[in-house]
Amino acid sequence: MDAREVLEKLVSGEIDIDQAERLLRLDYVERIGNHTVFDMGRECRSGIPEVVYASGKEPEKVGEIVERVVNKKDIIVVSRASAEYYDEVVRRIGGEGVAFKPEARMIIVDRRGCSGESLGKIGILTAGTSDIPVAEEAAAIAEVMGCSVIKGYDVGIAGIHRLLEPLKKMIKEDVACVVVVAGMEGALPSVVAGMVGVPVIGVPTSIGYGLGAGGIGALTTMLQSCVPGLVVVNIDNGFNAGATAALIAKMRRTR
Amino acid sequence: MDAREVLEKLVSGEIDIDQAERLLRLDYVERIGNHTVFDMGRECRSGIPEVVYASGKEPEKVGEIVERVVNKKDIIVVSRASAEYYDEVVRRIGGEGVAFKPEARMIIVDRRGCSGESLGKIGILTAGTSDIPVAEEAAAIAEVMGCSVIKGYDVGIAGIHRLLEPLKKMIKEDVACVVVVAGMEGALPSVVAGMVGVPVIGVPTSIGYGLGAGGIGALTTMLQSCVPGLVVVNIDNGFNAGATAALIAKMRRTR
Amino acid sequence: MDAREVLEKLVSGEIDIDQAERLLRLDYVERIGNHTVFDMGRECRSGIPEVVYASGKEPEKVGEIVERVVNKKDIIVVSRASAEYYDEVVRRIGGEGVAFKPEARMIIVDRRGCSGESLGKIGILTAGTSDIPVAEEAAAIAEVMGCSVIKGYDVGIAGIHRLLEPLKKMIKEDVACVVVVAGMEGALPSVVAGMVGVPVIGVPTSIGYGLGAGGIGALTTMLQSCVPGLVVVNIDNGFNAGATAALIAKMRRTR
Amino acid sequence: MDAREVLEKLVSGEIDIDQAERLLRLDYVERIGNHTVFDMGRECRSGIPEVVYASGKEPEKVGEIVERVVNKKDIIVVSRASAEYYDEVVRRIGGEGVAFKPEARMIIVDRRGCSGESLGKIGILTAGTSDIPVAEEAAAIAEVMGCSVIKGYDVGIAGIHRLLEPLKKMIKEDVACVVVVAGMEGALPSVVAGMVGVPVIGVPTSIGYGLGAGGIGALTTMLQSCVPGLVVVNIDNGFNAGATAALIAKMRRTR
Amino acid sequence: MDAREVLEKLVSGEIDIDQAERLLRLDYVERIGNHTVFDMGRECRSGIPEVVYASGKEPEKVGEIVERVVNKKDIIVVSRASAEYYDEVVRRIGGEGVAFKPEARMIIVDRRGCSGESLGKIGILTAGTSDIPVAEEAAAIAEVMGCSVIKGYDVGIAGIHRLLEPLKKMIKEDVACVVVVAGMEGALPSVVAGMVGVPVIGVPTSIGYGLGAGGIGALTTMLQSCVPGLVVVNIDNGFNAGATAALIAKMRRTR
Amino acid sequence: MDAREVLEKLVSGEIDIDQAERLLRLDYVERIGNHTVFDMGRECRSGIPEVVYASGKEPEKVGEIVERVVNKKDIIVVSRASAEYYDEVVRRIGGEGVAFKPEARMIIVDRRGCSGESLGKIGILTAGTSDIPVAEEAAAIAEVMGCSVIKGYDVGIAGIHRLLEPLKKMIKEDVACVVVVAGMEGALPSVVAGMVGVPVIGVPTSIGYGLGAGGIGALTTMLQSCVPGLVVVNIDNGFNAGATAALIAKMRRTR
Amino acid sequence: MDAREVLEKLVSGEIDIDQAERLLRLDYVERIGNHTVFDMGRECRSGIPEVVYASGKEPEKVGEIVERVVNKKDIIVVSRASAEYYDEVVRRIGGEGVAFKPEARMIIVDRRGCSGESLGKIGILTAGTSDIPVAEEAAAIAEVMGCSVIKGYDVGIAGIHRLLEPLKKMIKEDVACVVVVAGMEGALPSVVAGMVGVPVIGVPTSIGYGLGAGGIGALTTMLQSCVPGLVVVNIDNGFNAGATAALIAKMRRTR
Amino acid sequence: MDAREVLEKLVSGEIDIDQAERLLRLDYVERIGNHTVFDMGRECRSGIPEVVYASGKEPEKVGEIVERVVNKKDIIVVSRASAEYYDEVVRRIGGEGVAFKPEARMIIVDRRGCSGESLGKIGILTAGTSDIPVAEEAAAIAEVMGCSVIKGYDVGIAGIHRLLEPLKKMIKEDVACVVVVAGMEGALPSVVAGMVGVPVIGVPTSIGYGLGAGGIGALTTMLQSCVPGLVVVNIDNGFNAGATAALIAKMRRTR
Repeated sequence: MDAREVLEKLVSGEIDIDQAERLLRLDYVERIGNHTVFDMGRECRSGIPEVVYASGKEPEKVGEIVERVVNKKDIIVVSRASAEYYDEVVRRIGGEGVAFKPEARMIIVDRRGCSGESLGKIGILTAGTSDIPVAEEAAAIAEVMGCSVIKGYDVGIAGIHRLLEPLKKMIKEDVACVVVVAGMEGALPSVVAGMVGVPVIGVPTSIGYGLGAGGIGALTTMLQSCVPGLVVVNIDNGFNAGATAALIAKMRRTR
Repeated sequence: MDAREVLEKLVSGEIDIDQAERLLRLDYVERIGNHTVFDMGRECRSGIPEVVYASGKEPEKVGEIVERVVNKKDIIVVSRASAEYYDEVVRRIGGEGVAFKPEARMIIVDRRGCSGESLGKIGILTAGTSDIPVAEEAAAIAEVMGCSVIKGYDVGIAGIHRLLEPLKKMIKEDVACVVVVAGMEGALPSVVAGMVGVPVIGVPTSIGYGLGAGGIGALTTMLQSCVPGLVVVNIDNGFNAGATAALIAKMRRTR
Repeated sequence: MDAREVLEKLVSGEIDIDQAERLLRLDYVERIGNHTVFDMGRECRSGIPEVVYASGKEPEKVGEIVERVVNKKDIIVVSRASAEYYDEVVRRIGGEGVAFKPEARMIIVDRRGCSGESLGKIGILTAGTSDIPVAEEAAAIAEVMGCSVIKGYDVGIAGIHRLLEPLKKMIKEDVACVVVVAGMEGALPSVVAGMVGVPVIGVPTSIGYGLGAGGIGALTTMLQSCVPGLVVVNIDNGFNAGATAALIAKMRRTR
Repeated sequence: MDAREVLEKLVSGEIDIDQAERLLRLDYVERIGNHTVFDMGRECRSGIPEVVYASGKEPEKVGEIVERVVNKKDIIVVSRASAEYYDEVVRRIGGEGVAFKPEARMIIVDRRGCSGESLGKIGILTAGTSDIPVAEEAAAIAEVMGCSVIKGYDVGIAGIHRLLEPLKKMIKEDVACVVVVAGMEGALPSVVAGMVGVPVIGVPTSIGYGLGAGGIGALTTMLQSCVPGLVVVNIDNGFNAGATAALIAKMRRTR
Repeated sequence: MDAREVLEKLVSGEIDIDQAERLLRLDYVERIGNHTVFDMGRECRSGIPEVVYASGKEPEKVGEIVERVVNKKDIIVVSRASAEYYDEVVRRIGGEGVAFKPEARMIIVDRRGCSGESLGKIGILTAGTSDIPVAEEAAAIAEVMGCSVIKGYDVGIAGIHRLLEPLKKMIKEDVACVVVVAGMEGALPSVVAGMVGVPVIGVPTSIGYGLGAGGIGALTTMLQSCVPGLVVVNIDNGFNAGATAALIAKMRRTR
Repeated sequence: MDAREVLEKLVSGEIDIDQAERLLRLDYVERIGNHTVFDMGRECRSGIPEVVYASGKEPEKVGEIVERVVNKKDIIVVSRASAEYYDEVVRRIGGEGVAFKPEARMIIVDRRGCSGESLGKIGILTAGTSDIPVAEEAAAIAEVMGCSVIKGYDVGIAGIHRLLEPLKKMIKEDVACVVVVAGMEGALPSVVAGMVGVPVIGVPTSIGYGLGAGGIGALTTMLQSCVPGLVVVNIDNGFNAGATAALIAKMRRTR
Repeated sequence: MDAREVLEKLVSGEIDIDQAERLLRLDYVERIGNHTVFDMGRECRSGIPEVVYASGKEPEKVGEIVERVVNKKDIIVVSRASAEYYDEVVRRIGGEGVAFKPEARMIIVDRRGCSGESLGKIGILTAGTSDIPVAEEAAAIAEVMGCSVIKGYDVGIAGIHRLLEPLKKMIKEDVACVVVVAGMEGALPSVVAGMVGVPVIGVPTSIGYGLGAGGIGALTTMLQSCVPGLVVVNIDNGFNAGATAALIAKMRRTR
Repeated sequence: MDAREVLEKLVSGEIDIDQAERLLRLDYVERIGNHTVFDMGRECRSGIPEVVYASGKEPEKVGEIVERVVNKKDIIVVSRASAEYYDEVVRRIGGEGVAFKPEARMIIVDRRGCSGESLGKIGILTAGTSDIPVAEEAAAIAEVMGCSVIKGYDVGIAGIHRLLEPLKKMIKEDVACVVVVAGMEGALPSVVAGMVGVPVIGVPTSIGYGLGAGGIGALTTMLQSCVPGLVVVNIDNGFNAGATAALIAKMRRTR
């Protein structure tokens, strides 16, 4: 029953105002619903695979979700996962096209058949050793999305010369974006953004203590940075940094 | 005197350890200094014009800085400026190639002679009317950097249909990036990031009150967003959002 | 061009994957857009009049918005407005059906012709004298939405007996909801929620100083309250409290 | 000894001012005390069952409280309870009319004999899977209070179409109120409040990390929301949301 | 109609359950109301005069409140008041028994006829010159309540010897309590509490900057103090400190 | 060598300015040192027993401290202690005059020989069951200092009538001070302070969740309270509350 | 009356325990007092001139303090002062030896007759132009204390080469300490501390906006820095930074 | 290829602008890189040994880093380490010159052959027993850097006389700097800074609870202190305090 019908019935007295109002509201929601039975799902909309966040969910629960989705999606990523989750996933859908990346804490279910051409190149740097798992998460999702990743880990600001070698390589290889992962004072992304000519995505990590503990200090530093070209994601959110970097890299391909 | 000389003198007893240590440190700083007399300046390094932040500085001070820099740089941008600053700048360096954009609170000194080809296209959206000055700042810097900007203002989440028209136009025109400016609860960037296939830069504005006032609420929402592809700049930092968007747009041109 | 067409062209090689992807995304947004040309607007969806938030906007800007909307909407409310805004609105659309409520800082444009039957009754209490403007804002919007309002102002917790008289009246009149506006320690809503059998909406106000200044103390108290039936809106948000109270009152009418 | 007597004794010199003052204060408190020997208890006052919060108390302690109260109250609810608490309760008062709802972490002791007619209908939505226990808590208390509950879980904002099916059902069934449980950025309640014509109660959950961790981000978003009709309870307080929703539903019954 | 009547009517079918419930709730509130028509008012209950907080209220509003209360109360105190408020009060109720203390920003209306015997002695210290207005507020209310006050201002911790002279005087005079007013790091109350054998009330003031600005630093220091015997009031709340000190001093009198 | 000697040597050239300056500084510190060899120790200065805070220290460490102090002090209190600490203390100094109060988590070493006359009476109330350990700590220290304690536990604000019985007893017994321990919203101290004529010491506890978790909510409410006569100690600091209450009670004795 | 006398009188019954306790406490405080009549004042103790903080005090008040102190002290510094304060000071004590430094907002009253030998050298750097007043305050106090100051202003991190010139000069001149003043992200002190071999004192300034506004961001960055040798003072506290730097420089002189 | 070559090729058309820009950027980074192949490493630059932060890293990881660095560095310090880490380090590089300091949680690898002359003296004080590990960390690094350390532990503010003995010793021995470690209210550094004539480095520790818990209270107090000469490091950062103190002590040696 569309709006016209409702209004006609209201005028003719078949329904009262309360009923009419509710019917119109229903019609409004239904119309959105009828026309958003998506054929292509989320990959199409944002270019990013379906993601299941494992942390805080039981392995069986995660396995169940993957099993339900696997027929509809070519690529599924389970983030913040351990080997236990991997075993559960394999138990349910078999091991074909399923990979576990322990450093990135990620399970990747990729059944596209072909890996396709490379989407582009990005760089990923970390200030310290403890920042590596977050960086690996960024790298894994970027690779799933078709990027090559050039890595430079533990190049933190105290020894600026350690930074130069990987940075030169990234510039030579013409990366489209650099992801910089840093905890503590979080100054590295500013330094990098001042030296490269491409967008830099800063990822604060929850390393740090005292005032600004839990990554708030690093996040604040990155947001306060005076160097343009530096954008930020939430603390420890390597996933989003890697995914956005891949979207930027994709710009090169999609003229 | 390089490190070898210092060490020789130390061994021969001409200098003591304290002196040697200081000389080595001086040598270390000097070597960096000698080799970083940049010829090309900041534009080269980051692709972003020289910026003078006017807020909190006297017009004369700003005028003085512009006058000093204008011969070395082709493009200078004075941000958070009023007409008073514009008058002072024109008084000192003349009006040629100097423009004042009141909505963006920005003075642009552009003496490149030619504006050059378009770098690419970006989209800029605001949730409310009060967010417009921040959006205009983003637009102005992106245009200076050679981008075309498609704008859609006051399309906030309460009426999602107001958002669709400008969004369709942006997708049709194939923008490389969408800047979304929003205060209060700051939910618009998430919605947009869920609908477009390109990176979204969220700019929280200092609109809002109560818990999360001053833009903290909007910033938090954007950082917490579950939708990948959304990165964030600091509250009211339209400048950085516009500059980064232009860098992303430039990806298309620079294969 | 719908999804099928896109896919056919892709298979036939007329378009490439990048083009196909963009076309599909455009199709997705367009489909939402085509089907959400709302006939009934916002009143229908949420039962709440169109609102213009005046604070931080020029009177001319507000006047312009009202002028644009007045033909499409029966009721428009301008909140946080002064007499200056009222004059501007009257100058543009004439004074018919336009009222200014200075205590509530609100302009109401009501051109429904008839005020209709009463929707129901709500109660509004304030702890102190300084909380009254926020309470008046709640009262004004509730009245616009068809409610009768029983008020009891300055009945704060220090003298609990001052509270009893208005509370008894509210229970006798069988209000559907009580809005309680309080700053400082914000304990009054808990006390009221413990005594009445209907939902209580607590509105913290920005009265207060020291630790918990700006209303944070009152907000925290209300959220921490052990007494069920107490829900909260943001600091000073009388508007939302009044509107929600009216929606609750409407429950009585709409069986 | 009432106030008059005190004052007479003071005048006659039998007591001094200090004693008189203390006696009057005692009289003041006693009078309140004498007249507030409640016959009907808390159910009457607020329409909500007696609640025992188990978290942080030993099972024996909780069992002891339940045993003491069970003769005076028809309905007792133990919240945040595990099976261990349930066993203890059954050990003390027997299993008749005692139910344990593990998902809601709740024990319900209901000895009313009859469950009575339905009070009304409410809807409960969650954004993610992790928000379900809080939603179940809301559902359990609402059902105890006589409501039917329509549930829609894991319908979060990333896939807005997943939201439409349950929302349509809720509108068709004419729910009196929708409880929306969401962590992370907490944007779902705003979206729902913009689509339904009834009050929405937002429940932020302690899901989330980085800036705004522990639910502060979701709470802030909900409080900052521009959409009227949305009220909020404290983080993870499903109990209060369910109880208030039931009070609102009750409005329909009690004209 | 008392509870018995209500229940009888319910059983006989004269009223239904909803009506009965509402009547019982009304009865509950009414009974509290009938029996708390206080004869002696607030002075009796807490030994503290009626207070009107002027800040944020118009002089006329304050004058109106004083005028209304003056016949029922012997002592009224208007806090945070300027001369303008004093003039307004005198204009309305005449100048008899009305005093203005500009340093304490307080108007005192005292119409008891006799000032009575001294209640006891307290000491008041400030760390700096800027803390004096808060200290004067404490002194004024303590004097109104019948205390003698020994003052020692600007004796801050940097020069501990400046503290000793007034402290010795306070101990000699056997004060019952020492109020210590301090901003910045707020360490003075700890030092004093370590040296005297009576309770110390710390009053943080909003002097200070940087981390802990607005008095939060001083408040935190006082709460964290390891020295027992130190209790605290909110930032700048000289009024409460003076009133509580007077209540403590009164202990001596009221055996 | 006193200051005069130093200056004479400086003038005569025996020492230079640097040496003179250091000698004077040494003299300054030495003079304080020589004259502060206290005979009476801390009991004299503040009327409060020596306290050892056990939390975070090994039992052996605590035992060692007690052993060292026990000959110099009549009374030692070990706070936040478990049975393990008690065993260690008894192992070292024997069990005579050593008591362990598990609910108060306190060991008391009292070797005064006689307990002496009662110092006075205080009242202690808690809002909930979980607040009891903090209240017991307050009670234990007050009793050590010679006070009788009237207790009323679990009388929280939701059922105000539960509060009246213990409050009446406290007023009848003429307590000098009431300690009120409360978590969550922390409103109980305000209510009590409005009903009694003696100082009230509020103790926020770390019970609570969401916004204001960890006791910050309760602390804020107590500091923001409009009711004079209410002073506050830090979260969970039952010790300080009990000690200060005893100091106030002592006022009655020490005219 | 010393402790022995008190105890004798107590034993003989001349005084009771309460009196004895109070007398002993008085004796304790008196003994500190008698022996701390300082001859040399504060300069001796800490090597830092007497300071009067003008901000928030009336010019007359400041003038009065200076007038009172000027005969006892050789050097007085009035910080956060304007010309108006200078005029008042000169009006009262004459202009001899009185200087006003407007950039440092400081009045210096120096009546030592001779300025003496140089104490040593320090360096002062600022990141931006807006940080200069804080740096000038540091420089002024360091010079009063006998230091030579090498300045390098506006050398912020965006253009690291601007930093090298002044840094090389500071190392050549062998400064004892470098004060680095920076707002926004506050990363400059870390960079400097990584390059020099002397202590660095970071001064965060209240420049900055959004998350970490008011200097909190810069303070956090400096505290979180991984580079040892960097210590921090409070936001905008140039005075303390300059004074401490001078104390460090003095180390060189005072072997 | 240097800048000139690049520009020549650009003019001759061999390369386009994009390529030229990237080549110039590469040249810029390469030049820094080529000239910062440091010969002397970090010891030279800052006078502080190479540090490995063990907390959050596996023992093997730490052992691997030490093994890699040990040939290039004379001194390596592993901080926040347990015996397990020590065993791993010894297993890999042998025990020669390797020491474990359990109280300081530090492993020191010192293969300089000779310990050299003493650099100078510093003092280290703690307020309480729980602050000792942080103080020991400061002592260990200062000793590695060649300082003698005079310690005074558990001298907290409650008993100021306990402070005087170690303070006198420090002044007599003419320490160059005093490190003061304190949690809770953190007032001790202010008191010490008011009594000594040398710089004081305050180290807040994470001891404390309630408002200002986790060391924020102590940090705030130290930053707010009015006593000049007091500088601060982050919470629990004994390492930085000890290292900076050693740098200050070194001033004496390095004229």
